[in-house]
Amino acid sequence: MALQGKMVIGQSGGPTAVINQSLVGAILAARKHADITGILGAKHGIAGIMKEDFIDLTTQSEAALETLAATPAAGLGSVRLKPGKAECERVFEVFRAHDVRYFFYIGGNDSAETAHIIAEMAKQADYDFCTVHIPKTIDNDLKVTDHCPGYASAARFVALAFMGDDRDNAALAGIKINVVMGRDAGFLTAASALARQQEGDGPHLIYVPERTFDVAQFQADVKATVARYGRCVVAVSEGITNADGDPVMTSGERDSHGNLQLSGSGALGDFLAGKVKEAYAGEPVRVRADTFGYLQRSFPTIISQVDAEEARLVGAFGVDHAVASGEPGSVAIRRLSSQPYASECFMTPLASVAREATSLKESYINEAGNDVTQAWLDYVQPLVGALPEMGRLI
Amino acid sequence: MALQGKMVIGQSGGPTAVINQSLVGAILAARKHADITGILGAKHGIAGIMKEDFIDLTTQSEAALETLAATPAAGLGSVRLKPGKAECERVFEVFRAHDVRYFFYIGGNDSAETAHIIAEMAKQADYDFCTVHIPKTIDNDLKVTDHCPGYASAARFVALAFMGDDRDNAALAGIKINVVMGRDAGFLTAASALARQQEGDGPHLIYVPERTFDVAQFQADVKATVARYGRCVVAVSEGITNADGDPVMTSGERDSHGNLQLSGSGALGDFLAGKVKEAYAGEPVRVRADTFGYLQRSFPTIISQVDAEEARLVGAFGVDHAVASGEPGSVAIRRLSSQPYASECFMTPLASVAREATSLKESYINEAGNDVTQAWLDYVQPLVGALPEMGRLI
Repeated sequence: MALQGKMVIGQSGGPTAVINQSLVGAILAARKHADITGILGAKHGIAGIMKEDFIDLTTQSEAALETLAATPAAGLGSVRLKPGKAECERVFEVFRAHDVRYFFYIGGNDSAETAHIIAEMAKQADYDFCTVHIPKTIDNDLKVTDHCPGYASAARFVALAFMGDDRDNAALAGIKINVVMGRDAGFLTAASALARQQEGDGPHLIYVPERTFDVAQFQADVKATVARYGRCVVAVSEGITNADGDPVMTSGERDSHGNLQLSGSGALGDFLAGKVKEAYAGEPVRVRADTFGYLQRSFPTIISQVDAEEARLVGAFGVDHAVASGEPGSVAIRRLSSQPYASECFMTPLASVAREATSLKESYINEAGNDVTQAWLDYVQPLVGALPEMGRLI
Repeated sequence: MALQGKMVIGQSGGPTAVINQSLVGAILAARKHADITGILGAKHGIAGIMKEDFIDLTTQSEAALETLAATPAAGLGSVRLKPGKAECERVFEVFRAHDVRYFFYIGGNDSAETAHIIAEMAKQADYDFCTVHIPKTIDNDLKVTDHCPGYASAARFVALAFMGDDRDNAALAGIKINVVMGRDAGFLTAASALARQQEGDGPHLIYVPERTFDVAQFQADVKATVARYGRCVVAVSEGITNADGDPVMTSGERDSHGNLQLSGSGALGDFLAGKVKEAYAGEPVRVRADTFGYLQRSFPTIISQVDAEEARLVGAFGVDHAVASGEPGSVAIRRLSSQPYASECFMTPLASVAREATSLKESYINEAGNDVTQAWLDYVQPLVGALPEMGRLI
């Protein structure tokens, strides 16, 4: 017999363009289960739960939920809080007080860990309870799953941005550096390669955090590209590090997790542009840097269809699984085929996803460490979907 | 009797998302006129003409041209060259050598000036010749015309970016500064106001170059907004200046026109973020800055329908006018109605558009100089078109 009681659902970490698809998928699935006696949305994730700051999710019309599903960012509000033991105990206390028997947490590996800690507490307290982690991250760095909901839409933004920017750079030749999100993994930056449609199209150079970034090599790579094509478009991850493992350049500020702030600053782009000018030592050269910033994860209408559908599905799958089995876990995606693309959902233990992260496979990065491989394109293309053809005369 | 001979068409200045619509509109119109005996595309504008670097535009299929029309940036290549007398003489010499009787230059006020100088040369030389300027600029700062092709698509990008970014900021509260293109005019930055759908939506503050930017007032504005809404989204033009008329912050580099480089650098955003942190004097506050950069003018698929249609139309209108009248001029747009939107093309003398630029009307900016007015929204909304509704729960 299934657990009977209320469910709480929350969103955590950096928003994505499709995280509300997962929320709506879970809500609509939950409304079909009589065992779920109430649907509580936690405002700003764990922070809202501790304050018992809930929103009733049983009453919204399906039309309103569909509008929400197509809206970027986290509809319930998000939070960057890795709760300690005392905070998890408070969460658990609130759950007991409200007869909450299901907890769905939409987030990355930190959220999986939070879900895992609370699941363990419930087990020790002999409180019948099921907690499920629903994956999302534009970074695509969760373990076990083939890829993460939220990633492909951000990757689509990056690919389109590079397609247009490469045509812009072809029209007014110069050296253009675009800084892409990705602290430890180069998945988003690597997606820039999808922008290439013809020989000579940019990005001409792609640098990811999985390889050490050497400024002198970068300067040499840019000069070689300019010598060949008369111009150069560069994709670089915000998280690139030097031989000591330190960020190449940051604004110096740290976020609430103690991580150096990489996004929301133009520091790395400006630093690299300066290094290119230095390499040309006074020769007139047009160098520009853009930092794509938060637009990558929140731009309305730039959505991968596969991403939207899978994000909806992982939410519904998590709820259906919890009601059917009562077993905790994290929803993951298995790729069944790339051509044509097909996938299915499955459950993996919370501990297998919690805390740790993955990064780009060795086989996805070229030997020189300044580009991706065909294997990478075969992996990412079906997720991002068809891109418009760029017309050209010259 | 119409002038008989070849035509040259070129593109100049910063690319836009619809400048190729104007190019294709002109080509398709020209193909219908028997008096135009050849269509030559100048690679990189004036620079290509001086080198006789032309591409034959009589042979491309309509399908290829339609793909080009939907592609951002300048398909013929662009140039940032304000030709002097010697250069204009060289251009005129090339035109005579190739029996060129029509010259269509797609660009901003500098391009109108170039067209004007060459038209005057032809007149003095008694060479039968017609030159027409076809307007484009994302800055929307050309005189006479109601608005400029290229502007509305960039404005649509800005509006959508703010819609998503505001939801992102609502999910993870903080202070977010977005730097928008616009050296001397705030048209693009002001379009951010279209992102607001409900009371409390950002952008909460909008700063344009038409008003002096005072750092202390900015700090006070941000603190007042945070006190009211718990967060603050700011739109600021890259070209804001202080009381001395100097740019608030730049990378220090100058472009080929001797203008200080504003785009392609995160310097202003980082400077303003620092000023906000300073205002909070050690209180923990989440401040981020993004500089939208070149994506605003070159992002594929983010196109205003009105803009695409009008950009096509000004190209065709310019060619039809030249063949019918032989009179030089610049194509402009007259708004016939805002609700429902309707417009028509007309010709204005080259001298009326050359060199000088316009900026936001006084009546479009609020008294405090930190927001726009309803009159502005009434002007810009029909150009940008309908925007998606943002769903929300909190």
